[in-house]
Amino acid sequence: MDLAILGYGVVGSGTARLLEKNRARIAERAMQASLRLKYILDIREFPGDPFEALVVRDIGAILGDPDVAVVAETIGGLHPAFEYALACLRAGKSVVSSNKELVAVKGYELLQAAKENNANFLFEASVGGGIPVIRPLSQCLAANEISEVAGILNGTTNFILTRMIEDAMPFDRALRMAQERGYAERDPGADVEGHDACRKLCILAALAFGRHVYPEQVRTEGIAGLTPEDAAYADKLGCNIKLLGRGKRLPDGRITAAVGPMLVPRAKSLLACVSDVYNAILIRGDAVDDVVFYGKGAGQFPTASAVVADIIDCARHMDKRRFFEWEQGGPEFVAPAEEDVVKLYVRADCEDSLAAQKAILRAFPGAAFLETQGAGEIAFVTMPTRDGGAREALGHMPGIEARMIMRVAEF
Amino acid sequence: MDLAILGYGVVGSGTARLLEKNRARIAERAMQASLRLKYILDIREFPGDPFEALVVRDIGAILGDPDVAVVAETIGGLHPAFEYALACLRAGKSVVSSNKELVAVKGYELLQAAKENNANFLFEASVGGGIPVIRPLSQCLAANEISEVAGILNGTTNFILTRMIEDAMPFDRALRMAQERGYAERDPGADVEGHDACRKLCILAALAFGRHVYPEQVRTEGIAGLTPEDAAYADKLGCNIKLLGRGKRLPDGRITAAVGPMLVPRAKSLLACVSDVYNAILIRGDAVDDVVFYGKGAGQFPTASAVVADIIDCARHMDKRRFFEWEQGGPEFVAPAEEDVVKLYVRADCEDSLAAQKAILRAFPGAAFLETQGAGEIAFVTMPTRDGGAREALGHMPGIEARMIMRVAEF
Repeated sequence: MDLAILGYGVVGSGTARLLEKNRARIAERAMQASLRLKYILDIREFPGDPFEALVVRDIGAILGDPDVAVVAETIGGLHPAFEYALACLRAGKSVVSSNKELVAVKGYELLQAAKENNANFLFEASVGGGIPVIRPLSQCLAANEISEVAGILNGTTNFILTRMIEDAMPFDRALRMAQERGYAERDPGADVEGHDACRKLCILAALAFGRHVYPEQVRTEGIAGLTPEDAAYADKLGCNIKLLGRGKRLPDGRITAAVGPMLVPRAKSLLACVSDVYNAILIRGDAVDDVVFYGKGAGQFPTASAVVADIIDCARHMDKRRFFEWEQGGPEFVAPAEEDVVKLYVRADCEDSLAAQKAILRAFPGAAFLETQGAGEIAFVTMPTRDGGAREALGHMPGIEARMIMRVAEF
Repeated sequence: MDLAILGYGVVGSGTARLLEKNRARIAERAMQASLRLKYILDIREFPGDPFEALVVRDIGAILGDPDVAVVAETIGGLHPAFEYALACLRAGKSVVSSNKELVAVKGYELLQAAKENNANFLFEASVGGGIPVIRPLSQCLAANEISEVAGILNGTTNFILTRMIEDAMPFDRALRMAQERGYAERDPGADVEGHDACRKLCILAALAFGRHVYPEQVRTEGIAGLTPEDAAYADKLGCNIKLLGRGKRLPDGRITAAVGPMLVPRAKSLLACVSDVYNAILIRGDAVDDVVFYGKGAGQFPTASAVVADIIDCARHMDKRRFFEWEQGGPEFVAPAEEDVVKLYVRADCEDSLAAQKAILRAFPGAAFLETQGAGEIAFVTMPTRDGGAREALGHMPGIEARMIMRVAEF
């Protein structure tokens, strides 16, 4: 059976190298005499690369070759990844992808195309790098009604937060360190603003709850506004700050989904213990209760490990489609994050702290104040309150300017 | 498609109830019009039970019914579970099992019988309760060469250890508390002596390394000898004590496998953070690096969740066998634990602590002594040393009597 890789970047070249390194084991697992990498599509040249001879520039070569049964899309981004993946599926080839943006935005369409053409579209590598989570969610937990998915879905931001928590490092310095170590891109926007985590949450939520969830339906907040003071306040509450993506089923059949920094209690949640570039994903099912999957959420070989696992699965099931499917999404499916009832942590500037405390207690009865670290600042945690209403109230309190609002995780 | 359950105990009745509760979702996932539970085999009577009418006492009724395609074995123990499972496979029925003793001792034979009869033998529920680990290990990590598996595989002992660590509770009291809460059996031997963890490690090791590993090949130590002092010494070293099962591939192609309490560094390992009745399993692959699976390792519905996932998988693949297979084991495959080179923690009684320190440093150059908590006691950690030789040396040191010897985990 022949394979093609689209995009010879970090993940694509890792996939080629892993297919080569564990060749015998992979072919045996795939129940194939051999799995031969035949084409690598890229517009660049790779002089001296061991796979140089396989590089083609025209997708037509791959589409027109009936021996190519499985195509790994590792280009990233929406275009031309979407057009290429769709064309491959329409040509009856199975597609595996590490591209979270592609799945989060076009997953429903591509799954439909796979179905119509009796091919597979798999994407284990799109969430959590090499951590097995898509397949366990869809297969191993198949007997469960899933009520919640939550996770640390971005390694770059978790590294930055770990430095801010453990070393009291300011955000900017922690970001620079992440860039120096190659964990963060030079343009770190997609990571630090939460967009990468948002895409992954969309994929998890679609699998867990059965309908497509689009990135624009997920309220997404990043970590750039956090300060070491926030980390210190959280510490006093027995919490670590983590950038979490979280989707939850509501009693009315809708779901709620949000990405943002949250306070996670160390005594109650394993997620609080997940540090550095590691990812962890929690799934709550009615029978199994909480399970957590942990590992490196990015990196060349962890991600390639998931791409190759999908290739193996496609090769074993050429005659049969696999589990993955979900329904089309829609605005009626996702409740606005503002409707959630949550505990909020607030750090605010204030002129007169005694007056501010009084005003805060009027707006948020039962709020618990934290020992502040300087004059002119106030920090507190509310009782469970409606997210949107609380934020609006905070915007209208004279003499108080909220600098950071974060949810307190209840798991 | 019709189903049967063998053994109507905790797991068997949980399976029946879960099949009923999530009936529509389960049938849909199984791609069957319906999955009907037709028989429950048990020698007891269950007057008033909602499934009373399904109870039969003779396995012949199930073996002779061609409509029964999948049988869930939840009897536990070796006999008659083995004979029944084998008879079902020989009758061409697929078998799923939650029975770790059965798989650890008879797994190879049953997998062979499944193969010969074109049926499936699946056992996700036998390790880690509802935590998906068997399937991820065999499928999602299929591209990896696995070098190591390690885990907290028994919830009862982890609960006891958590009480000893967090509440400085002596072993006996912690065990009584576990029994009062229903976590430990009245006869807790299989748990506290490590045999339950040993069986689960055998299953993980067979899947990870490709050959059957038998319980008697695994050096197994329990936790009954631990004291709160050991927990306090470990704490000073930044470690928590965990009962770990661990299997590792050696450069010569053999493996090593052992179960026993170990010191796990809090700063380095997520396993140190796993408390109470939770389980966690670490798998180290050459591409994916470390991944950890965490959740409730026991309990009626978590375990039933895994049994039903296997039933669904069998129902979807009636025409096709699944991944699981391993080769026969043998004495040449498993190196004795005594050959391992490890760091050891030792707590010993001694008459003259200065003389003891000198003797210890002669036998274990570079040993680091811990501040002791009373006269007549000495505690230290060795440099990496050969396990068997070190234990023998400790047995022959005049004036020193070793009370506890534990490995220090290096992950």
